[in-house]
Amino acid sequence: MTDAAHMALWESLDLDIPAHDALLTVLGKFYGDIYLSQQGRLKGAEYLDFVLSEVHGLRIKEIQDAKATGKKVVGTFCVFVPEELTLAADAIQVGLCAGAKAGTEKAETLVPRNTCDLIKSFVGFKLAKLCPYTESCDLVVGETTCDGKKKAYEAFGEHVPMHVMEVPQCKGPRDRDLFRAELTRYKDALEKLTGNTITAAALAAATKVVNAKRQALQRLARLRSADPAPISGRDALLVNQISFYDDPVRFTAKINELCDEMEARIKAGQGVAPSGTPRLLLAGCPMAVPNWKLPYLIESSGAVIVGEESCIGERNTRDFTDETPTDLDGMLDALTDRYMKIDCACFTPNTERLDHIAAMAKELGADGVIHYGLLFCQPYAHEALKVGKAMEAAGLPYLAIETDYGMEDAGQLKTRVEAFVETLS
Amino acid sequence: MTDAAHMALWESLDLDIPAHDALLTVLGKFYGDIYLSQQGRLKGAEYLDFVLSEVHGLRIKEIQDAKATGKKVVGTFCVFVPEELTLAADAIQVGLCAGAKAGTEKAETLVPRNTCDLIKSFVGFKLAKLCPYTESCDLVVGETTCDGKKKAYEAFGEHVPMHVMEVPQCKGPRDRDLFRAELTRYKDALEKLTGNTITAAALAAATKVVNAKRQALQRLARLRSADPAPISGRDALLVNQISFYDDPVRFTAKINELCDEMEARIKAGQGVAPSGTPRLLLAGCPMAVPNWKLPYLIESSGAVIVGEESCIGERNTRDFTDETPTDLDGMLDALTDRYMKIDCACFTPNTERLDHIAAMAKELGADGVIHYGLLFCQPYAHEALKVGKAMEAAGLPYLAIETDYGMEDAGQLKTRVEAFVETLS
Repeated sequence: MTDAAHMALWESLDLDIPAHDALLTVLGKFYGDIYLSQQGRLKGAEYLDFVLSEVHGLRIKEIQDAKATGKKVVGTFCVFVPEELTLAADAIQVGLCAGAKAGTEKAETLVPRNTCDLIKSFVGFKLAKLCPYTESCDLVVGETTCDGKKKAYEAFGEHVPMHVMEVPQCKGPRDRDLFRAELTRYKDALEKLTGNTITAAALAAATKVVNAKRQALQRLARLRSADPAPISGRDALLVNQISFYDDPVRFTAKINELCDEMEARIKAGQGVAPSGTPRLLLAGCPMAVPNWKLPYLIESSGAVIVGEESCIGERNTRDFTDETPTDLDGMLDALTDRYMKIDCACFTPNTERLDHIAAMAKELGADGVIHYGLLFCQPYAHEALKVGKAMEAAGLPYLAIETDYGMEDAGQLKTRVEAFVETLS
Repeated sequence: MTDAAHMALWESLDLDIPAHDALLTVLGKFYGDIYLSQQGRLKGAEYLDFVLSEVHGLRIKEIQDAKATGKKVVGTFCVFVPEELTLAADAIQVGLCAGAKAGTEKAETLVPRNTCDLIKSFVGFKLAKLCPYTESCDLVVGETTCDGKKKAYEAFGEHVPMHVMEVPQCKGPRDRDLFRAELTRYKDALEKLTGNTITAAALAAATKVVNAKRQALQRLARLRSADPAPISGRDALLVNQISFYDDPVRFTAKINELCDEMEARIKAGQGVAPSGTPRLLLAGCPMAVPNWKLPYLIESSGAVIVGEESCIGERNTRDFTDETPTDLDGMLDALTDRYMKIDCACFTPNTERLDHIAAMAKELGADGVIHYGLLFCQPYAHEALKVGKAMEAAGLPYLAIETDYGMEDAGQLKTRVEAFVETLS
């Protein structure tokens, strides 16, 4: 797209153009430093670079063009919002901007200062008019996965059309009933929004699309067990980040191409870091675009990341939705089963997450685990303590880091990460 | 009780005697400064002084004597745990120590540092062996009302026999179903614990006892609408605090006596502060014994507190349980209805709380509202912003304070409170 076309697009969305220009400049520099500087990158990463370079351009244009034909756009912040239903209503689902400091001062008029940066970010992006995705939304879907988001949506709902899904806190039969009813309520909201009826055929087709995306991401995740590592953790994270907003069919095709290339590379014994490089599993809070700080610090400290135990990673891709049912009720049951398997820290107890982390570390040949907690995220801060004990029991070196989107602690974090990596060599 | 009898009791509970002695010394001094120094106190406050002086003595002895006859003791931290059921199982329900800094360093090995002091306190009291109530418990009942407690109970449950009740996050029909099922599950747990069957007759009797306690507390609350104020906010808070651990029948009788005295005082035009003293409503987080810091700061700044919009206050006493049903199922439905009315910040939305605060302020003739948020309590921090907007709309002066159990900020808080009170005169 030309600069003029970009400008016209952003003006049509009423973005704050000077502030948005400044944001893109910083983002471009940040991307260059963290991504384009990498050695031995996969050729397929060109897709990632292109998507990122047009993240507020071409993809927004596509979405706007679709809207012009009557399509509706649904924005989300959480892996509990079933993309299957959104696609079955012929709507577009996108993850909203939540990975960078933006509009913080404005955000703090709506949410408390002791709120995690992810929440402050999405509120700030909206209030400062910096996110073309948020501005494109016909509906924003929230969920009750943590106190911070649950209460933030009350205030956020005064600024965007909001639908909040209740996610239960335990996994008993009544919890399942509650979530099942919430899926129906979401289905109804989508039908009302789009004017389309969600039929069994449409939901079956949509489920195939979403499962195919999960299949591609699982394929990529499994290939990372190879030594040397065929892809950097940064690029793998970016793949997962892009999975939340690119067109799902195109994305799946591109990721499968990337996997083909990875397989060839593995066969040739090649990788992004020499064999013997300390391999780390990153666990914990989601890292939304462009929250690349910690992966960059880790991979510039002599280690390579081989897995993301996170909502923007394994937690979003681990489970398929059963495609067997042929009637709508059966399909909604299957969706309930699939989403209630998620090992989010919002559940109590959530011991399966400890087993998943240990299993991932083993399968991926990780030499250690780094837990990333976002400052003021209480659910994952609690689990960081539990993961630490579980990793000690499993004999796996463990480092728990708590940080936010600021760069002030980068030096200190790098020192801690380097010291940790050194113990693994 | 004699010192020797106290000592024998505490040793039998395996308390850390030197640390516990130190705690009681500080508590005694604190109580003297904050309570015994008050002018024009009600004669009935002698009951409060006595109960407090024997808080770790006589009441614990009573509980231990009851345990010796086979009674069971249930500890709680939240107004969602239905005392009706506990009493119907012929068990004793007590609120556990959570209002003072204790064992903080130990607590921070189980819960994150960015956790509110209430949670750190109950964890610390247990790990440091300082709470004779916790040590007397046969069962501790938690609930999923906030991320901090929900996740803390996972770790706490490794140190005490734990039962966690799920409290839903919305108030729809499925939420009601879920909570109804949780009441049944709690009933079953009580029956298993005590060996007693909860009959309709027992539950009806227990409901009368708990409703009578609420009735007395409501009577006291209503009398505070008089000008001059017939009781200090500190003493009224203490009454509510004691309601969580004294014997409910004795407590109700004593509070009704106190109310008789208050009525006589009102008739005589007397009070604890001259007519015209700025009257404040205190809203927000619960203040567990001995968390008297903010009420003391307020009432030593030329204002009088006329109501507590808090779980240790109005939120716990506002609603009665319907005594009409005669069968167990109907009674459990009535309990469900009663508890699902609570306007806790754990719910989304929770707009009824804003209406309640405005109504309380009006009924009690409050000149302003102070919102108390416990540092790191996210649900009430969010609502503090909303309450501020609602009070502005209602034309009520408003001050939001966030603090913890430390005394380091006392001077700074006093300056802020004094400045606020000055604007009301």
